[in-house]
Amino acid sequence: MNNIEIKKKLTNSWFNYLQLEICKQFEVLENKFGNNKKKFNKRNWSKEINGEGGGISYLLSNGNIFDKVGINKSTVSGIFKKEFRSKILGAKKDGKYWASGISVVAHMKNPKMPAVHFNTRFIVTQKEWFGGGMDITPSFVNKNEKTNIHKKLKKLCFDNKKNYNLYKKWCDKYFYLPHRKEPRGIGGLFFDYETKDWEKNFKFVRELGLYFINISKEIVQKKIKTKWSLKDKKKQMLKRGRYVEFNLLYDRGTKFGLNSGGNIKSILMSLPPNAKWK
Amino acid sequence: MNNIEIKKKLTNSWFNYLQLEICKQFEVLENKFGNNKKKFNKRNWSKEINGEGGGISYLLSNGNIFDKVGINKSTVSGIFKKEFRSKILGAKKDGKYWASGISVVAHMKNPKMPAVHFNTRFIVTQKEWFGGGMDITPSFVNKNEKTNIHKKLKKLCFDNKKNYNLYKKWCDKYFYLPHRKEPRGIGGLFFDYETKDWEKNFKFVRELGLYFINISKEIVQKKIKTKWSLKDKKKQMLKRGRYVEFNLLYDRGTKFGLNSGGNIKSILMSLPPNAKWK
Repeated sequence: MNNIEIKKKLTNSWFNYLQLEICKQFEVLENKFGNNKKKFNKRNWSKEINGEGGGISYLLSNGNIFDKVGINKSTVSGIFKKEFRSKILGAKKDGKYWASGISVVAHMKNPKMPAVHFNTRFIVTQKEWFGGGMDITPSFVNKNEKTNIHKKLKKLCFDNKKNYNLYKKWCDKYFYLPHRKEPRGIGGLFFDYETKDWEKNFKFVRELGLYFINISKEIVQKKIKTKWSLKDKKKQMLKRGRYVEFNLLYDRGTKFGLNSGGNIKSILMSLPPNAKWK
Repeated sequence: MNNIEIKKKLTNSWFNYLQLEICKQFEVLENKFGNNKKKFNKRNWSKEINGEGGGISYLLSNGNIFDKVGINKSTVSGIFKKEFRSKILGAKKDGKYWASGISVVAHMKNPKMPAVHFNTRFIVTQKEWFGGGMDITPSFVNKNEKTNIHKKLKKLCFDNKKNYNLYKKWCDKYFYLPHRKEPRGIGGLFFDYETKDWEKNFKFVRELGLYFINISKEIVQKKIKTKWSLKDKKKQMLKRGRYVEFNLLYDRGTKFGLNSGGNIKSILMSLPPNAKWK
């Protein structure tokens, strides 16, 4: 496997598949536990410049399980503006890029259920690499939940000969709000610039996607009967304020989207449905 | 009047006075029209490095007129980090600065009343200059209100021999969300780098502060009986989402605060009490 075009086709297809799989499984959660027939709304978008790709967004709002969940997949190409080139590996020379990826953020109705985030991507410039991760943002930290999720992610890394400690630390470092001196949540995995063994990395990226589904399902299933009050909801709304701050002030995905002619509705789909500030 | 130390004392004192004046007048609005005895909460903060100043924040939340209004005054000094120096006039060489200013944001309970924002500042680096402005962000645009406010601001500029059209355009350009292709609100005045006639500029800065009080009072008085529904409130919350996006993605005041060791609670006091995203 050496041909870059085959790699692009394979990753693009995988992200398409995974998007549909997550939609299906999340719809089942919403319909079964939320006792309704809510469906995802699908929206296609294209970049303004013809031939530079676009994406598909799925959004489900006001569910009984999900307050808001967005699942974005996009495959785009183009040339980065000069100012932005030095910030992207391998783009300094000519600014050319091709990128395909999927990202998911789910904001739960029950404030005792954490928000979950997942993203994987394959990027091609003069270099080519995988990046991604998943992380968990509870409004109420539950030690067992934290231990349990990290145990799973550790196993995933072990099975794929990936350095769990490195990815965990990277995640803690990335999802941090320096102005608040606060972590965004309880962490997870984060990795980038995985340029080497393509087959091995792609397998890891695929399995992380499936782990994300399972972890999300387990979170919902375990806490479906957990009671909550309006006071809990208020705490969740304040935590969502932090989520907004992180995404708008620091998130590289947001900046990448804004700098690659992405679709603004899709880029900001990760924002919570509502938030509060004191 | 040439001595820079006298200028610093004068501007600092003015901003102190104006902060108290706005607090008093806004409290009267809240107590009289909101029919309550709400008071502002005062909080002092100091920069971590001794001798580099600090500020005073006044906050009133959950009023019957004001959902949230924050009035910040700070006088700080220090040395900018190297990365930030080129962004500040006159700071390129040694990064030294002294800055004093006041900023106010009021988010109204009644969604038919616009949010109001005002800021004036005097900054000293190798150069010295005034900057500031005020602008209005309605969730429901009312043509008469817009005309009326701009008429007042035009008079203010005329009386002070300031270029209203320039300041108005500057405001429109500054308070714009490029990713949404939307203006933040209906504009107002914005100016910066007023380095020349110090006396004239200081007078304008003082009068703008007093105009801000009068315009805010008139907005409240005129609309105190305007009815609103939950649907209107929802529209206001979505508009507040745009406010959050602007402040976190673009606002220079926010960036200045984060880059000058400002107090995070005070810097982010401009954020609305709550917001929604679709």
